[in-house]
Amino acid sequence: MRETIARLPGSKIREVANAGLGRDDVLAFWFGESDEVTPEPVRRAAADSLMRGETFYSHNLGLAELREALRGYTAALHGDPGPDRIAVTSSGVSALMTAMQWLVDPGDEVVVVVPVWPNLPAQPEILGGCVTRVALAPDAQGAWRLDLQRLLDAVTPATRVLLLNAPNNPTGWTLTRTEQQALLAHCRRTGTWIVADEVYDRVWFGTETVGPLTPAASPPEGGSPAWGGPARAAAPSFLDIASPDDRLVVVHSFSKSFLMTGWRLGWLVLPAGQLDAVGKLIEFNSSCAPVFVQRGGLAALACADEFVPQLIARLKAGRDALCPLLAAIPGVQSATPQGGMYAFFRVPGADDSLVFAKRLVTEVGLGLAPGAAFGIEGEGWLRWCFASQDTARLVAGVDRLRAALRL
Amino acid sequence: MRETIARLPGSKIREVANAGLGRDDVLAFWFGESDEVTPEPVRRAAADSLMRGETFYSHNLGLAELREALRGYTAALHGDPGPDRIAVTSSGVSALMTAMQWLVDPGDEVVVVVPVWPNLPAQPEILGGCVTRVALAPDAQGAWRLDLQRLLDAVTPATRVLLLNAPNNPTGWTLTRTEQQALLAHCRRTGTWIVADEVYDRVWFGTETVGPLTPAASPPEGGSPAWGGPARAAAPSFLDIASPDDRLVVVHSFSKSFLMTGWRLGWLVLPAGQLDAVGKLIEFNSSCAPVFVQRGGLAALACADEFVPQLIARLKAGRDALCPLLAAIPGVQSATPQGGMYAFFRVPGADDSLVFAKRLVTEVGLGLAPGAAFGIEGEGWLRWCFASQDTARLVAGVDRLRAALRL
Repeated sequence: MRETIARLPGSKIREVANAGLGRDDVLAFWFGESDEVTPEPVRRAAADSLMRGETFYSHNLGLAELREALRGYTAALHGDPGPDRIAVTSSGVSALMTAMQWLVDPGDEVVVVVPVWPNLPAQPEILGGCVTRVALAPDAQGAWRLDLQRLLDAVTPATRVLLLNAPNNPTGWTLTRTEQQALLAHCRRTGTWIVADEVYDRVWFGTETVGPLTPAASPPEGGSPAWGGPARAAAPSFLDIASPDDRLVVVHSFSKSFLMTGWRLGWLVLPAGQLDAVGKLIEFNSSCAPVFVQRGGLAALACADEFVPQLIARLKAGRDALCPLLAAIPGVQSATPQGGMYAFFRVPGADDSLVFAKRLVTEVGLGLAPGAAFGIEGEGWLRWCFASQDTARLVAGVDRLRAALRL
Repeated sequence: MRETIARLPGSKIREVANAGLGRDDVLAFWFGESDEVTPEPVRRAAADSLMRGETFYSHNLGLAELREALRGYTAALHGDPGPDRIAVTSSGVSALMTAMQWLVDPGDEVVVVVPVWPNLPAQPEILGGCVTRVALAPDAQGAWRLDLQRLLDAVTPATRVLLLNAPNNPTGWTLTRTEQQALLAHCRRTGTWIVADEVYDRVWFGTETVGPLTPAASPPEGGSPAWGGPARAAAPSFLDIASPDDRLVVVHSFSKSFLMTGWRLGWLVLPAGQLDAVGKLIEFNSSCAPVFVQRGGLAALACADEFVPQLIARLKAGRDALCPLLAAIPGVQSATPQGGMYAFFRVPGADDSLVFAKRLVTEVGLGLAPGAAFGIEGEGWLRWCFASQDTARLVAGVDRLRAALRL
């Protein structure tokens, strides 16, 4: 095997989960997914498609009706991207890998803001790129902050791609509109591509008014019903401020906002005129997403206006049940995140977060992700996914954490 | 975008198919899939899984029960591969990309036997590898043959990977046991990895006795029911002759043998001790195959002994309806393939096969794949997928071809 692949770190989250194998009493909050199943109409749409016999190859870029519905969904949040800018992919991570293959030659520099979920920096490394990590830093309350000037200094004309995940997994850090504007202006000067992983855009609890700078366009004739709906809440997006010919790729997924983690369905928003090249890459990586999975995606978009705000309210309830309890533990450094579905917090004694997380599993049956899973910058911290329908589970988990800390 | 990606040829098959857009009278044989839907029990198993709520992330390497069933399926065809050698992937093409990412560093040499479906040479090129093409050549009857010595000469200690697709798409060429033995012995000497795309292993009409050199092992205690079934027909496989520590990766798919093209489900058979590294790559490319799709795969394997021989008989009927008619056309060079589901044949006047294939669509409503889609070595030839339930459709297609040739 390649030395590059041997060197890639394995998942420290799975290492912790393996420590709990065979135990059925673990309260597990380690993975980045809700404990709710996908909404019934979405599952029904896919099952119906299967039973109708939609089992053949389909277009590399996705079903035309799904791409049109995604355009409408995007338009209502961020303004109309225009035609021929959306490609359906077999998961968000596959969308990211496609973007990396499209942009990163061996030896190219990719700047990544960290801590971040490990797939982001791993992908350019697989492709022979050179990754430069720029670290967020926690303030006294435990909220992670970007030193914008440091990031601007790191992105030079030699930087091929600036890779950002905001709202961020694991820290909850979210780019502000002002920061996005500064980064876009800078990358226009350096000729750097921005690849923005915005899969948590709807999982956002901020109160500022964001959305597109110009009002959402009216639906084109025959446009999907998703068009022209009421303004919907989302974190600031590069799509709000970029033009169709900017070097910008936005990565999306059905996983988080529609409880569809196991479906492996995502999409890319690309600059105008690039679909043919990206379609080739999709052909060579996965060929197409299953039609029946795409039917599920269509059903999800059709119920988005009703479903997503209710889901976000449940996630907010989870956050608000968990975060104050964590912050009240003596010695714990924990801020309440504005976006994402994780509490990321520092615990006394967790300097080796992998060892500590394994101890939590074996001693008290609490399953958390070690901060080191997100890079050395997260060492000493822990990630807790609060996407739980039952907030009592979260409260019981905090009791177990206190027990482990002998409190 | 990278120059490498811009240079990758787009699909000439899709270019021909696009020439037929909006026409509903085209007899289309251009894509590599049957016109039959997936068997009902397979679709039902996936639909039931969805309705049960199996919509969460799963193991990178696939469900344990599917991996065990695939081990049993492999054992009955090629001898027991032993434990921990199978990884489930999100399609055969994804399995191939995973293998390439695992093995090919930028600058590494990959030797590919051509003509071949275009994804094979495209993948190492995406990864910065250097592709050396070794061409099969047609004999007077139109059967494509390997010059074994030429291939052995091309594979040197500088060759990282020998990439083979046999039974071959598009030519139907199949490696003999003797050729496989010579290649394996040679690659052991040069330290070259063999990546064998054997997705058409069951789509094989040969009569020789093949299968494992040693009898299939008995099922281990609690082994899946697929174990120890009657010997089943399959083309010669490198798995029949290799040991678990050979540098061999075998790529498989549910697409062809189980009519599951649109499902995007495949698997890899790897050397012993390599699953952890490959699991990492799956995480970074697609994370996991959907559980409900894997339930379909399990149902397919459960009915394989009944279903696959019947399917192969239907494919053989298609082949035997089509090939003699093609061979009888004056000037056409066409052999009857031993494996795969394509007639690959040379037609007078098709020197530019793309132009000719488009002309067939627009003038007589016949949809074939141009040979140039499979590399310059296939120029002047056409590929016809005979996986049609209704052999009368094939006969009608030949009438249209004769009309186009003014016969």
